[in-house]
Amino acid sequence: IRKGFPEVIFGQGKTAAQITRILQAMASSEEVILVTRISKDKAQQVMESITAATYDEEARILQLQKNPPEIINKGEILVISAGTSDIPVAREAAITARAMGNRVTTVFDVGVAGIHRLFAHKKIIEQASVIVVVAGMEGALPSVVAGMVKSPVIAVPTSIGYGTSFGGMTALLSMLNACSSNIAVVNIDNGFGGGHMAATINRLTALIHDTP
Amino acid sequence: IRKGFPEVIFGQGKTAAQITRILQAMASSEEVILVTRISKDKAQQVMESITAATYDEEARILQLQKNPPEIINKGEILVISAGTSDIPVAREAAITARAMGNRVTTVFDVGVAGIHRLFAHKKIIEQASVIVVVAGMEGALPSVVAGMVKSPVIAVPTSIGYGTSFGGMTALLSMLNACSSNIAVVNIDNGFGGGHMAATINRLTALIHDTP
Amino acid sequence: IRKGFPEVIFGQGKTAAQITRILQAMASSEEVILVTRISKDKAQQVMESITAATYDEEARILQLQKNPPEIINKGEILVISAGTSDIPVAREAAITARAMGNRVTTVFDVGVAGIHRLFAHKKIIEQASVIVVVAGMEGALPSVVAGMVKSPVIAVPTSIGYGTSFGGMTALLSMLNACSSNIAVVNIDNGFGGGHMAATINRLTALIHDTP
Amino acid sequence: IRKGFPEVIFGQGKTAAQITRILQAMASSEEVILVTRISKDKAQQVMESITAATYDEEARILQLQKNPPEIINKGEILVISAGTSDIPVAREAAITARAMGNRVTTVFDVGVAGIHRLFAHKKIIEQASVIVVVAGMEGALPSVVAGMVKSPVIAVPTSIGYGTSFGGMTALLSMLNACSSNIAVVNIDNGFGGGHMAATINRLTALIHDTP
Amino acid sequence: IRKGFPEVIFGQGKTAAQITRILQAMASSEEVILVTRISKDKAQQVMESITAATYDEEARILQLQKNPPEIINKGEILVISAGTSDIPVAREAAITARAMGNRVTTVFDVGVAGIHRLFAHKKIIEQASVIVVVAGMEGALPSVVAGMVKSPVIAVPTSIGYGTSFGGMTALLSMLNACSSNIAVVNIDNGFGGGHMAATINRLTALIHDTP
Amino acid sequence: IRKGFPEVIFGQGKTAAQITRILQAMASSEEVILVTRISKDKAQQVMESITAATYDEEARILQLQKNPPEIINKGEILVISAGTSDIPVAREAAITARAMGNRVTTVFDVGVAGIHRLFAHKKIIEQASVIVVVAGMEGALPSVVAGMVKSPVIAVPTSIGYGTSFGGMTALLSMLNACSSNIAVVNIDNGFGGGHMAATINRLTALIHDTP
Amino acid sequence: IRKGFPEVIFGQGKTAAQITRILQAMASSEEVILVTRISKDKAQQVMESITAATYDEEARILQLQKNPPEIINKGEILVISAGTSDIPVAREAAITARAMGNRVTTVFDVGVAGIHRLFAHKKIIEQASVIVVVAGMEGALPSVVAGMVKSPVIAVPTSIGYGTSFGGMTALLSMLNACSSNIAVVNIDNGFGGGHMAATINRLTALIHDTP
Amino acid sequence: IRKGFPEVIFGQGKTAAQITRILQAMASSEEVILVTRISKDKAQQVMESITAATYDEEARILQLQKNPPEIINKGEILVISAGTSDIPVAREAAITARAMGNRVTTVFDVGVAGIHRLFAHKKIIEQASVIVVVAGMEGALPSVVAGMVKSPVIAVPTSIGYGTSFGGMTALLSMLNACSSNIAVVNIDNGFGGGHMAATINRLTALIHDTP
Ligand SMILES: Nc1ncnc2c1ncn2[C@@H]1O[C@H](COP(=O)(O)O)[C@@H](O)[C@H]1O
Ligand SMILES: Nc1ncnc2c1ncn2[C@@H]1O[C@H](COP(=O)(O)O)[C@@H](O)[C@H]1O
Ligand SMILES: Nc1ncnc2c1ncn2[C@@H]1O[C@H](COP(=O)(O)O)[C@@H](O)[C@H]1O
Ligand SMILES: Nc1ncnc2c1ncn2[C@@H]1O[C@H](COP(=O)(O)O)[C@@H](O)[C@H]1O
Ligand SMILES: [Mg+2]
Ligand SMILES: [Mg+2]
Ligand SMILES: [Mg+2]
Ligand SMILES: [Mg+2]
Ligand SMILES: [Mg+2]
Ligand SMILES: [Mg+2]
Ligand SMILES: [Mg+2]
Ligand SMILES: [Mg+2]
Repeated sequence: IRKGFPEVIFGQGKTAAQITRILQAMASSEEVILVTRISKDKAQQVMESITAATYDEEARILQLQKNPPEIINKGEILVISAGTSDIPVAREAAITARAMGNRVTTVFDVGVAGIHRLFAHKKIIEQASVIVVVAGMEGALPSVVAGMVKSPVIAVPTSIGYGTSFGGMTALLSMLNACSSNIAVVNIDNGFGGGHMAATINRLTALIHDTP
Repeated sequence: IRKGFPEVIFGQGKTAAQITRILQAMASSEEVILVTRISKDKAQQVMESITAATYDEEARILQLQKNPPEIINKGEILVISAGTSDIPVAREAAITARAMGNRVTTVFDVGVAGIHRLFAHKKIIEQASVIVVVAGMEGALPSVVAGMVKSPVIAVPTSIGYGTSFGGMTALLSMLNACSSNIAVVNIDNGFGGGHMAATINRLTALIHDTP
Repeated sequence: IRKGFPEVIFGQGKTAAQITRILQAMASSEEVILVTRISKDKAQQVMESITAATYDEEARILQLQKNPPEIINKGEILVISAGTSDIPVAREAAITARAMGNRVTTVFDVGVAGIHRLFAHKKIIEQASVIVVVAGMEGALPSVVAGMVKSPVIAVPTSIGYGTSFGGMTALLSMLNACSSNIAVVNIDNGFGGGHMAATINRLTALIHDTP
Repeated sequence: IRKGFPEVIFGQGKTAAQITRILQAMASSEEVILVTRISKDKAQQVMESITAATYDEEARILQLQKNPPEIINKGEILVISAGTSDIPVAREAAITARAMGNRVTTVFDVGVAGIHRLFAHKKIIEQASVIVVVAGMEGALPSVVAGMVKSPVIAVPTSIGYGTSFGGMTALLSMLNACSSNIAVVNIDNGFGGGHMAATINRLTALIHDTP
Repeated sequence: IRKGFPEVIFGQGKTAAQITRILQAMASSEEVILVTRISKDKAQQVMESITAATYDEEARILQLQKNPPEIINKGEILVISAGTSDIPVAREAAITARAMGNRVTTVFDVGVAGIHRLFAHKKIIEQASVIVVVAGMEGALPSVVAGMVKSPVIAVPTSIGYGTSFGGMTALLSMLNACSSNIAVVNIDNGFGGGHMAATINRLTALIHDTP
Repeated sequence: IRKGFPEVIFGQGKTAAQITRILQAMASSEEVILVTRISKDKAQQVMESITAATYDEEARILQLQKNPPEIINKGEILVISAGTSDIPVAREAAITARAMGNRVTTVFDVGVAGIHRLFAHKKIIEQASVIVVVAGMEGALPSVVAGMVKSPVIAVPTSIGYGTSFGGMTALLSMLNACSSNIAVVNIDNGFGGGHMAATINRLTALIHDTP
Repeated sequence: IRKGFPEVIFGQGKTAAQITRILQAMASSEEVILVTRISKDKAQQVMESITAATYDEEARILQLQKNPPEIINKGEILVISAGTSDIPVAREAAITARAMGNRVTTVFDVGVAGIHRLFAHKKIIEQASVIVVVAGMEGALPSVVAGMVKSPVIAVPTSIGYGTSFGGMTALLSMLNACSSNIAVVNIDNGFGGGHMAATINRLTALIHDTP
Repeated sequence: IRKGFPEVIFGQGKTAAQITRILQAMASSEEVILVTRISKDKAQQVMESITAATYDEEARILQLQKNPPEIINKGEILVISAGTSDIPVAREAAITARAMGNRVTTVFDVGVAGIHRLFAHKKIIEQASVIVVVAGMEGALPSVVAGMVKSPVIAVPTSIGYGTSFGGMTALLSMLNACSSNIAVVNIDNGFGGGHMAATINRLTALIHDTP
């Protein structure tokens, strides 16, 4: 039994009809199902048949859950993002982590160009058990955050930027070269992966406690 | 107090004299000090003055510790590597994690070209609380391992290979695109970072348990 | 005489009128004609004049054949693919190989993230005389498959993925660096080329046998 | 039983002592053992203990064989190379294929800048059952050769060239984009892989014949 | 006085109105004016006001000339192209060279995959004083052509291809690494530049002759 | 007259004899001469003939000056660097700016992984009229510094790092994508250029003041 | 108080409604507000509510200012651009610098292919206190300009070009490698950043003068 | 008969013994033989046997000629180079063109950072019938030169530079994007190719004249 691991459908490239069919097949046996990267348009078509589903437009996630997922892990996952345009990816991470049974807090719009805004959240940052940091452009935020704490930081580069941001490649490279050692990185715009990895990590807080 | 976080000196680009001086300054106040990426040659020079230090030639790590670091975390960190040539990076990860107070197991030489060798260790793999997977060339191993477990996997690409392995870039890209979602990646040949991140994660097993 | 080598028209960038004209010119002299990379739209226009043609929407191939192509080679070509989105490229390979006089089997949706699904087909995999493996994202599947057999594996990278998948470049590089030595690679999304190469190879089973 | 598949040791990065030890362990159970990418220097040290071994300086291959490998496959493997500097990689391919039980012919120094030299070998080219084409710089040779025959062509890019040859990347890309469809490609400078793949393919000529 | 150098307007990114205005300003003082990279649509709008202009749809060039440009140079410029899709760029080169006072011949659809088609034109190729070779995909054609002659070859890579053709980069790199030494290269899809450079070179046949 | 612009010799790739000869030719007419990128070895040879020259080993700069250059500009140039290994490039910048008639302060070893160390210098940072920030690895420091001030920041990426630092490319890209708008960037490891540009800017403080 | 630093909204990716809302919130407290990268369409919608705003279609900047910004700095900022298509980026730079209290001159259409056109402006170029040079394609202009003056040059690469211009990367690299040392570079198409940096630099002419 | 086309041996990667052997075989039948890319060391060994050969250390060319090659073409080839370090490649071009029967002039050290130095040679530049321009770093020189003349310009990028000069790639890209249309480009550091192409072009001045 894999409590806390929802079924996940990668919505991109699938039609509304295909998604609906998959959801109907799974609906009875699963507690929580997420459809990621699904446009508003397609989501609305799906919800005509699957009326119990709910849609988060910003995160582009559609959820179908029997009951709101129980908090099964201890500690808190914090999702931080740099610019306004990074919020969709950050919310995708947050919703994923929440659906996997975690308490999730978010702090958005705290880029390194005005670093005092970040420091205003020092306490919340130090208390988190796992932190997901979402940033585009120069991707400097995870490095700064990781330097402030002892917890694991999952860095999610976004494709936000222009010119030499190279669709997120600059942010990704920056994160892989971070001077702090409590950072690991996922694919560009992979908010789902960032949230999932954080949840996988935070699960250790429950697992070990329960075993003895 | 940051129990389990040793002082770490990045040896590359520093002379034996510089390293010796830094070690002497820190020796009294620190429980454990690691010097990473230090050649045999330089290590031997350092050990002439710092006779209590020990050197691991394969991992290129020099350690100075008052007492063998206590196991302070629960669960076990597993370090897996693909080819013979990946072992130095894998050992660097393992030694780092051990020095940070973790029980560490290693399984080397289990590349995907003979996948039955990997499956022979199925049990050990499923029991680990965090897994570090080290691989060069096509970098496929973390993807396969992550598909076998629910624990977090830290993927460490190595620069092993030739031609289009591009000094580890191919392995890195492969790992960032892994189909499993319980993977995050560190810089090429960053065995220290892989081990450190794993230890940072496994620390959650102790932290939460101790708090209440 | 080149039995088993159909005429092939590269449909991409040609208008329906141009394709119709070429087909009409060739129709009488050729046993089998394939049009690759032709959209549903254009195919329907072509079929208004060339009513004997048939269209495979998923593979985007239009075929015109006097009689179903005879099986002229021994052994079997197996086409394996990783994700759902890789199926179009895989079908393009399968249809091409079939049109060139080969028995063709397909096994789809057996990516490395759930490797037991692959092993469920162990027998079929070991019996094939040539295997085409189609995969996007991290492109790890050919490496694993090639490690299971002694037959030649043709690896076809696809452009499926996002972020650092770089339109198939990551899968391609991964395949070129595979640890097994019975792999060779074709261009990204080149299902036709993969199927054609496999047929060219499998032809050896007929050729030699027939010569003495 | 895998007749025709010699044991292969990747010599690069291993010491003479390590190679000697591995050879001694395998010597009794194996018919043929190849050590690839081994320098003259190391080979001579190895041969002091393993006196039965022979070394090909150009191909940088050391062989240890009980008896000269029998020709077990039908058809002939042809190895063609473009420039003088490509010969080492070409010989590595030829020796590997020969050691795997194939009749092997070689045609060297027939680059596309003087294409009549290539055409002088038209007959030999058309008779081969598998062709390995080795080329650096612009990597155009495989494309031309593949256009002359119906057999499978394995293209091996080499790192020969300067400036924008990018260590073989230009040749590799050129080969992947060849207009002919009977080509597949292996890693840069991977003569061993090219020869091994060709042998794997040519094995079909024996296999099928023998089965009924 | 610069006989043979028409005025040239780079049409891309300019509106029909802007182009019309520029043409009207120049019309009286110039013998020949070319507008390159202008779509059919825009060309038709321009020709409503500038009725004397003519448009070549394939080459996407609009011309306004008082009289057909006189042949002012000796020798002949030959434009060769590889695939059907390369023809637009090849025609752009041919029309440009013709407008600059040169006799121009064209040989299209003679790619290296069927090299006998190229050799059928051996005589015409050997007689040209300058040759422009246009090719996409693997870009091998200029290398082969240059090996057949002693005249200067201008290689024009095109963006035709898919996957690893990288929008013409592979063809470009291939051409820069050609084994022959009578080749120089211009930017991707720069048919105008190829034709202009050829005309600039062929002008030497007139210049010197006339001077004494 | 160009007061504050010393003669500069790019030492890299020149022999000691060549540098000596150039210095001797210039010595009488120039107030200050810098030789950049000159190794200790070569510098010592030069100083055997040019005994008045002085050498800074860390910055690899040799200076020959009639009198210590006068402070001719107002305001202060601040040179900040991230890691220990970045110091040589930082010193190259500082010495260049000083030789051009500026008051120069330096703050080294204040990387973003321990950002409090940077903030300890808040006052000095806010008072500078131009700031040069030198950083390798993820190159995040200029972005953070620029967010703290209103003065112009010249960012100098260094080649310090490994793996995906790509010889400074990652730091460079990071700096070009900085969220602050008071940053401009020079070439990798170009400490001389960074110092020179800063001096060119700070010269405005003198120029304008003097004019009226 | 930060006289000369307008509020700036990055318009790209924001809706007209969002921009309107932000403008309304800031309108009373700010002297000058710029919205960059805003399309004509969106600008018109915004101006329906914010009637005092003005829009520059070419620069894609919308401005809202209580009074025309006073000239607060001495010296003059010069904006030079190479081709017609570079003008939008050049105007973005000019408008930004003007809004920050600087006298701004512009010289457009003076590319290096007709360098006499540039030299016709020699005097204006030598008199500027800071120069912004905007260029696409080969990006050679800043190098030539910087060689003519002793003032700081801010180079802005544009994405203008095709084929190997790689969306501005070629121009950017060219600028970073300029032989002159009074150049620093900003991101591709970052006219705003170029103008802002120039203003930040020119501010030194006022600052120092005012302080004593 | 190919008057003006010397035999050429690519020295790089060949031993002195190999080169000597080839020279001895050719010596009687050839008027002029060039060995390019041969180090001083090897050249001296070769000249011990082939005493009639002469060596140019800077160009790294060894020549063996029965008589000084006659001037067989009209017009003059001009070789221009930018920096001191570009001279070896420039001399390689000049010597090659001279050996092919051309009058050759050289103008070195006229980079774009001090463009007046270039203009001092305006007359010589305008009189040349073909111009070879050699430049590293930002590679801007060919663009400026081509804008000054109507003759064909062959641009030779060099690997001179550091950081983002990427071994000559930046110069190459810059040259391919030159705004002038009378430019074509050869491989990085390919001085031989540049000189050869120029000679091939200048040959038209003789050919046509002689034919009638
Ligand atoms: N999908 C494909 N990918 C690559 N090459 C193809 C494809 N389909 C057809 N071809 C090749 O293109 C040739 C026909 O091109 P065309 O004459 O333009 O129709 C065939 O002979 C095939 O070798
Ligand atoms: N030159 C080569 N290039 C690529 N792979 C090789 C080469 N030589 C040997 N191998 C592979 O490496 C394996 C042996 O690696 P190892 O155990 O490190 O000696 C063999 O089974 C071969 O598949
Ligand atoms: N470290 C450096 N990096 C870049 N450019 C430099 C450097 N040192 C000197 N220069 C430039 O190179 C020119 C001198 O080059 P050279 O004539 O080869 O000695 C000087 O005028 C400087 O502009
Ligand atoms: N065109 C532009 N390019 C780069 N940065 C810009 C641009 N326009 C505005 N900015 C920056 O973006 C910030 C505002 O971003 P936002 O809060 O998303 O509107 C400003 O403070 C500027 O520093
Ligand atoms: Mg950011
Ligand atoms: Mg591996
Ligand atoms: Mg895959
Ligand atoms: Mg070749
Ligand atoms: Mg082609
Ligand atoms: Mg840094
Ligand atoms: Mg330009
Ligand atoms: Mg240059």
